[in-house]
Amino acid sequence: MARRIKLTIEYDGTNFNGWQSQQDEESDSPGTSRTVQGQLETALRKLTRASIRVCGASRTDSGVHAQGQVAHFDGPDSFELPEQRIAAALNANLPEDMAVVSAEVVSPDFHAQHSATGKIYRYSIFSRRSRSATRTKTHWHIPHPLRLENMREAAAHLIGKHDLSAFATELNTVQEKRQTEGKPPLETIRELRRVDILSGENDTERGREIIIEVEGSGFLYKMVRTIVGSLVEVGRGAHDPDWIKAVLASRDRSKAGPTAPAKGLCLVSVLYDS
Amino acid sequence: MARRIKLTIEYDGTNFNGWQSQQDEESDSPGTSRTVQGQLETALRKLTRASIRVCGASRTDSGVHAQGQVAHFDGPDSFELPEQRIAAALNANLPEDMAVVSAEVVSPDFHAQHSATGKIYRYSIFSRRSRSATRTKTHWHIPHPLRLENMREAAAHLIGKHDLSAFATELNTVQEKRQTEGKPPLETIRELRRVDILSGENDTERGREIIIEVEGSGFLYKMVRTIVGSLVEVGRGAHDPDWIKAVLASRDRSKAGPTAPAKGLCLVSVLYDS
Repeated sequence: MARRIKLTIEYDGTNFNGWQSQQDEESDSPGTSRTVQGQLETALRKLTRASIRVCGASRTDSGVHAQGQVAHFDGPDSFELPEQRIAAALNANLPEDMAVVSAEVVSPDFHAQHSATGKIYRYSIFSRRSRSATRTKTHWHIPHPLRLENMREAAAHLIGKHDLSAFATELNTVQEKRQTEGKPPLETIRELRRVDILSGENDTERGREIIIEVEGSGFLYKMVRTIVGSLVEVGRGAHDPDWIKAVLASRDRSKAGPTAPAKGLCLVSVLYDS
Repeated sequence: MARRIKLTIEYDGTNFNGWQSQQDEESDSPGTSRTVQGQLETALRKLTRASIRVCGASRTDSGVHAQGQVAHFDGPDSFELPEQRIAAALNANLPEDMAVVSAEVVSPDFHAQHSATGKIYRYSIFSRRSRSATRTKTHWHIPHPLRLENMREAAAHLIGKHDLSAFATELNTVQEKRQTEGKPPLETIRELRRVDILSGENDTERGREIIIEVEGSGFLYKMVRTIVGSLVEVGRGAHDPDWIKAVLASRDRSKAGPTAPAKGLCLVSVLYDS
């Protein structure tokens, strides 16, 4: 009997052109058309001898990493591999920079994207005068000090339900496209449950790692990276913490800070009820 | 006037053939002859227009990383770049996978290797049934659970001054070579000040990171990796914690566990009296 299977997936986004598969993706060599979804579907085709479409919870962008991306697929009737052997069988067919952490049979109602009740993202910054040799693909290097207290004060203004249009990239394009397609406008009110700014010890010579962890009900396009770019503007003293309130109220992307680089972002968890 | 300069250096060891430069190292492309010392000397030649020999505190092996390797060199009289600009100038001439964290003018008595009073190494293990996609170059993947309490009990036997011959690779070769050269035998008594076994949360699905941090007066060849390989034998239940005492007493490398892979090892700090 056909089973719906939920996968938890980890990847180093450096050599992927994001999650979403491109047309005619065939090669598994690093290149522009190499995607996480595409590699996963290729591995599933090898394993099940069927053409299988995978649905992911989040369409992570090129360069963005994941520790806990979630996806589901429906195995064909003939796919009878025991649940506890699916992850290892897929991993044997996946490239080194992605791995299935776990696989479980779920109810046919489960939908990786629509059943999600929230997501947790983590953004990693490395603050030091000298560049780093070991964090080049995982951290945004910021060569000046950051005032974390100011960043925390600014972040507090984001908690709760707000119209987050100011922190969404290409929102106009998305809304116009939806209008053309006869769809209702995209909901821009989202709930941010926490924006934690964590930090290791501040060693002036060795530098300091700063982690911005964000949990929310859902995220608009490039929203976490725009929030991070804006908080860093506050951290370096370009704006007061209250500036974030004005940005939020403006609902205007041009008022917010720059988009932080993709490489610092990691999808940590997708949350579901139960 | 000639100045002696102390450098603190960070590198991702993946694409280096260790610290020590090879004869005729010319290319900076990843390959067998690419070394940290060689790249550093090439950058110094560009910066000072002189041929400069760098002396490192530790000859890290191929694949071993560093956060705080230390080296010194003597700048020629003509090298007058202010101290606070040396790190950035070197970093502009170094490949992406290595960086000078800091540079300072020190007394001509300072010697990166001989003045060192100790070193701190960190070994990273990732324990999870599924392989990892993001820790492939920094962690030893162990697919079975480890009993940390047993590993900590075994590690306690190593603290203090001991003859650590059982944990040194190629010791006979080294001693024979020294004898041929008319040198006294290598001292095999070393002091281990701490062997800490740290761990993140134990999440059966997501896995667990285990860090073994070792501080000692000095280390024999591949000593940390042999200690780690032996502690993992205890952790997986192949031996009781007291087995380490018998290994130590034997002074026989063949009695210890396997050598843990280089990629998990990182030279964290070199210690000096100051």
